Amino acid sequence: MITFDMKKTDLSINHSVIPGLDELIAFSNHLDIKISRALNGCVLIDAGIDGRGSFEAGRRIAEICLAGLGTVKLRASTNYENWSWHVDVHTANPVIACLASQYAGWSLSHGKGKRAFNALGSGPARALGSKESLFDEIGYRDKADRTCLVLEVDTIPPVEIADEIANECQIEPENLTLILTPTSSLAGAVQIIARVLETALHKAHALHFPLEKIVDGIGSAPLCPPAPDFLTAMSRANDAIFFAGQVHLFVDAGDDEAGKLAEDLPSSASKDYGKPFAEVFKDAGYDFYRIDPMLFSPARVTVSSVRTGRSFHAGKVDLPILHRSFTSVFS
Amino acid sequence: MITFDMKKTDLSINHSVIPGLDELIAFSNHLDIKISRALNGCVLIDAGIDGRGSFEAGRRIAEICLAGLGTVKLRASTNYENWSWHVDVHTANPVIACLASQYAGWSLSHGKGKRAFNALGSGPARALGSKESLFDEIGYRDKADRTCLVLEVDTIPPVEIADEIANECQIEPENLTLILTPTSSLAGAVQIIARVLETALHKAHALHFPLEKIVDGIGSAPLCPPAPDFLTAMSRANDAIFFAGQVHLFVDAGDDEAGKLAEDLPSSASKDYGKPFAEVFKDAGYDFYRIDPMLFSPARVTVSSVRTGRSFHAGKVDLPILHRSFTSVFS
Amino acid sequence: MITFDMKKTDLSINHSVIPGLDELIAFSNHLDIKISRALNGCVLIDAGIDGRGSFEAGRRIAEICLAGLGTVKLRASTNYENWSWHVDVHTANPVIACLASQYAGWSLSHGKGKRAFNALGSGPARALGSKESLFDEIGYRDKADRTCLVLEVDTIPPVEIADEIANECQIEPENLTLILTPTSSLAGAVQIIARVLETALHKAHALHFPLEKIVDGIGSAPLCPPAPDFLTAMSRANDAIFFAGQVHLFVDAGDDEAGKLAEDLPSSASKDYGKPFAEVFKDAGYDFYRIDPMLFSPARVTVSSVRTGRSFHAGKVDLPILHRSFTSVFS
Repeated sequence: MITFDMKKTDLSINHSVIPGLDELIAFSNHLDIKISRALNGCVLIDAGIDGRGSFEAGRRIAEICLAGLGTVKLRASTNYENWSWHVDVHTANPVIACLASQYAGWSLSHGKGKRAFNALGSGPARALGSKESLFDEIGYRDKADRTCLVLEVDTIPPVEIADEIANECQIEPENLTLILTPTSSLAGAVQIIARVLETALHKAHALHFPLEKIVDGIGSAPLCPPAPDFLTAMSRANDAIFFAGQVHLFVDAGDDEAGKLAEDLPSSASKDYGKPFAEVFKDAGYDFYRIDPMLFSPARVTVSSVRTGRSFHAGKVDLPILHRSFTSVFS
Repeated sequence: MITFDMKKTDLSINHSVIPGLDELIAFSNHLDIKISRALNGCVLIDAGIDGRGSFEAGRRIAEICLAGLGTVKLRASTNYENWSWHVDVHTANPVIACLASQYAGWSLSHGKGKRAFNALGSGPARALGSKESLFDEIGYRDKADRTCLVLEVDTIPPVEIADEIANECQIEPENLTLILTPTSSLAGAVQIIARVLETALHKAHALHFPLEKIVDGIGSAPLCPPAPDFLTAMSRANDAIFFAGQVHLFVDAGDDEAGKLAEDLPSSASKDYGKPFAEVFKDAGYDFYRIDPMLFSPARVTVSSVRTGRSFHAGKVDLPILHRSFTSVFS
Repeated sequence: MITFDMKKTDLSINHSVIPGLDELIAFSNHLDIKISRALNGCVLIDAGIDGRGSFEAGRRIAEICLAGLGTVKLRASTNYENWSWHVDVHTANPVIACLASQYAGWSLSHGKGKRAFNALGSGPARALGSKESLFDEIGYRDKADRTCLVLEVDTIPPVEIADEIANECQIEPENLTLILTPTSSLAGAVQIIARVLETALHKAHALHFPLEKIVDGIGSAPLCPPAPDFLTAMSRANDAIFFAGQVHLFVDAGDDEAGKLAEDLPSSASKDYGKPFAEVFKDAGYDFYRIDPMLFSPARVTVSSVRTGRSFHAGKVDLPILHRSFTSVFS
């Protein structure tokens, strides 16, 4: 077990998320999201199934995914001719905000066959109830009597799922909030693209870079146009990160270690790099587990060592592929 | 009558505006604006007549124009060589924020001849007291016992104007706030340029595009240098939108409809496009009603269909004309 | 004595700073800063000596330096190939925010020889206790019973320094907060670069431009990669301003005066311009007082006259020198 720096981890991410969560609920009319209660009493926030949702709802949900420990901003830009908005992400605490909260690592399922419900949960409830080994590795767990989980789904989850989450988190169901963001919704697009920094953190972890050496981080990627079908929507949001996402990590590490991380981190270091994600997914027979996990990372990376003062750059923004992704309908 | 989506309209824009309005008053010293009471008790906020005002005052007033339902941000930029600041506008609710509130549609006048007072009112009071047919078309009205209206004027309005507004809104005069922003003031420049998204909404409406199909929208335009005379100040703020404004609309519509909207929306689709607004105004004999209303729109537009996933681009940023506008004095 | 416009100065900068200061303390765990009390009871905020600190801590401290009267934002950018983040600064009140508060003008020292403690204090305590003649010139002083001072140091100051500050400010030591930001820390980098606008204000003053004519101002500079040694860290943060900082000032002045200010203001107008600051410092025998004070200013400046509507541009961004600074280690 890595002992993570306790200065940063003496934090309750289920506490820090509360102001943003309460505001999301308070502004639900304006944000065009629907609030209801499931049969077991848990709060459901529908940001794109029956409600239309909005980019602003997605921006706020993305900050909830970061447990209120970071900022997600929409910014106009003239960098990429036709795609004039960016999603910027910053947190003073990337390991906790991105990996202990934002990473969609809690695997949930109920039922079988065509009526099966499958989802990956994101947000601070993971630090209460998820059995992911990642929490042992970063040495962080939380205690709380209220929590929330974000599910990237296009149907209301069965009550058994809500029961399971509450049970694993050891909280009353009425103190659980589930936020639902379909991949093809406005909110869904923003909250996926806002994972640009998280993909770098998660890949750094997969590359066995010691997480406690990552001291700060910032990321940005263009906002994709939404698409009504799951395949196109998922591809565009991923491609925004893989072909135009930029991340700057600050590490307390030597030049060799920092340089190696920069070199390995960009999406172009993956054997599956080179075409829109929908095509990669098709070529993998629609089986996520046949896709190289190293693809899930930003296009361009800078790693600066705070120990030596040196910076290392790798990868590149690939506008032609981005353009192909944002203008194609894949299904 | 178009029945607008009630999910978004179950909102009181006179309620949502209150926090921003109270902050503007609280920070009046810092923002260099003057607060006083008119004879009938209504609150006057002078953001550039006797007070100097500031860009930050204008930014906050622009958010008040949007009824607190959107954000207006100043952003540094190196896109346009000499004009290094942009005004970015976003709202999850463009029809209500831009058309039911921000659009300067309430025509007010008092007196005759040279001493006549004429103004166009903007802000949430319109949804209480203005007789514009636009409110029937968008199916929105508000009820409130406190309200505010923004007037782009360079003199204090006569008390009869304040009485009329209070009367039409059916509120006590002491619960009315009038915010005064001369065109040539720092605050005036920002609050006009912040209309970049609203011009697209209003023109979409004029083009008979069904407003209920517009589901989200964002816009940006460069901040112009202020000018002391009305003609130059008005031209530059308009030209910032007409020659360098960019808007992205998201619509629930088919490709034909979305593509047609994109094609018709930019300022370059107007017969009066091609020179700074001051010259257009001069050539029209200083008569607004002889200017093609289709000119009032952003330079470049993207319309993305959330129904099909296709995006349509039209118009272009024209830096030479922008530069001519920002460096010329027209009166 | 210049009589400064009292509309803007009827402000207590020790009052306006309080919300930001209290938030910095409340979020100390997340921001990785250490809060303690000195022997005399004054609050010490360590943002990079024993605590690691973070860019977000630096951003908040920079807003505290501006006395809560301005905004400091981190913004992603693709303008400069390898340096993808900018620090944007805006205040409606540049003379008070930048000169009466942010400027590091309070010279403090204790002890002699190698154990001497020397620091320049920044922040609203200056307007209470500093003897700088600048306060007579801008005609501003504050009264308060709580205050804070930011010290760019890498050691905890001796208690005698805290006693002296409290004494000069005529406040109880327990109502004094000292914020410590080493030059080489993450927070230190941001809070120095956030001085991009202040350097323009201070140089305008040194050039005898009448401060009361400066009515608004905005600035931006790229975020430098941190360096572990003082010399490199100081050079990079300064070079971010000198070679890539951009400022736009708005003045109530004639064209001659505005044009002259623009011409004189950029760093390139200094005889010491042309190489990274570390090299200038070495060539001056490591003696600050042998460096041309006119070097301390942004790379590129626009001055717009609100009296005439004309804008004047001077200086330029010099990416090759910026790149050399950000990639070299100087000590």
